[in-house]
Amino acid sequence: MEGMRAIVLVSGGMDSCVTAAIAQTTGAELSFLHLNYGQRTERRELQAFSDLADFYAVPESRRMVASIAHLAAIGGSSLTDAAIPVTQADLENTEIPSSYVPFRNAHIVSVGVSWAEVIDAKRIYIGAVYEDSSGYPDCRPEYYAAFNHLIALGTAAGDIRVETPIITMTKDAIIRKGLELNAPLHLTWSCYQNEDRACGVCDSCALRLRAFQQVGIEDPIPYVVRPRYAANT
Amino acid sequence: MEGMRAIVLVSGGMDSCVTAAIAQTTGAELSFLHLNYGQRTERRELQAFSDLADFYAVPESRRMVASIAHLAAIGGSSLTDAAIPVTQADLENTEIPSSYVPFRNAHIVSVGVSWAEVIDAKRIYIGAVYEDSSGYPDCRPEYYAAFNHLIALGTAAGDIRVETPIITMTKDAIIRKGLELNAPLHLTWSCYQNEDRACGVCDSCALRLRAFQQVGIEDPIPYVVRPRYAANT
Repeated sequence: MEGMRAIVLVSGGMDSCVTAAIAQTTGAELSFLHLNYGQRTERRELQAFSDLADFYAVPESRRMVASIAHLAAIGGSSLTDAAIPVTQADLENTEIPSSYVPFRNAHIVSVGVSWAEVIDAKRIYIGAVYEDSSGYPDCRPEYYAAFNHLIALGTAAGDIRVETPIITMTKDAIIRKGLELNAPLHLTWSCYQNEDRACGVCDSCALRLRAFQQVGIEDPIPYVVRPRYAANT
Repeated sequence: MEGMRAIVLVSGGMDSCVTAAIAQTTGAELSFLHLNYGQRTERRELQAFSDLADFYAVPESRRMVASIAHLAAIGGSSLTDAAIPVTQADLENTEIPSSYVPFRNAHIVSVGVSWAEVIDAKRIYIGAVYEDSSGYPDCRPEYYAAFNHLIALGTAAGDIRVETPIITMTKDAIIRKGLELNAPLHLTWSCYQNEDRACGVCDSCALRLRAFQQVGIEDPIPYVVRPRYAANT
């Protein structure tokens, strides 16, 4: 991949941080893309994006923050619609959670594809995770296979591909991979609820805390509360 | 389709007008969606959208105008980047024109899919046209087949489908269909260049004028110039 250009979708969370660390190992020239979709915790996520871009020495000319805030107008999700409460964590619940933004990843990946065509990037890295994604239908490997087919048919370049290097990993495996690659996990942000200290009780915090507990190290970011989610071993 | 909800993507051009007329014949309850993507002629297109929605008696609560103006920041197209000149018509040219917005239709359709999930619509009508589309890769039937596969995999509902009722029609066939269904072609706008009188010389004007000339009737909208594009018969 030396000499190739790649775009990394960087929400500012742990998954995108480790995905960036993996993309970095390929030797591709990285551009970082952050999508603001009107989420409650946007200010904090944007700070994490900026901190991660600094860490990986991505120059300003290769950073883009794009707004897809029309998703907020569409509504239907607790992440963007203030009238819908954020669900408290229930890691046994297999239903699609209220934080699901309908078809969200299609918007995010499509921005990546459009930008890739313009800057001649051939790979778009996204930190989608199937197993710990609480049932979001647009996080499955077959979804990205279908997306790559769509890209091949719908772009002028034809050879742009979405890469999902952590999609089959468990959250604790993602943390281990991040530690192995010296990924700056302390700069990431995952909480859906607060911007100052992570709430510790939303789905996203619960998945993250459980994974750190499974790995057996302390999550380096501040929390309001740190419930124990992993089974005692 | 009686009792079913459908979304129509209405740019304000002739193709979307005839697509709306076709959707109307199904008896579905129609919602109209317009996407502003930072195009030069947005004000005029928005007026056409509003006129068409009035014509089809779509109430305000079932109209949405969403901005995907981040496409303008990405650039790469004469439609959104003022630094790239609008190509004058060359109907023999089979290359992808400068007005191509990379992967544009994916953004547009994705907004439709997200909205469909929220309002429980099952069909999304888009006036994509293959033959007269000057080689846009995201106007082909196989592209929409791939998109429907993506939707089936990536949505909670699973049974939402994109419909492309005019995709295999020639532009003159679209006009004939519009006349047959009493579609308000006089309210539509197609020009990429101007907002007051259509320029008559951009790709979009040329395709439209040629089609009206083939049908043998006068295009009801005002033009700066009306070159003859159809072969004399």
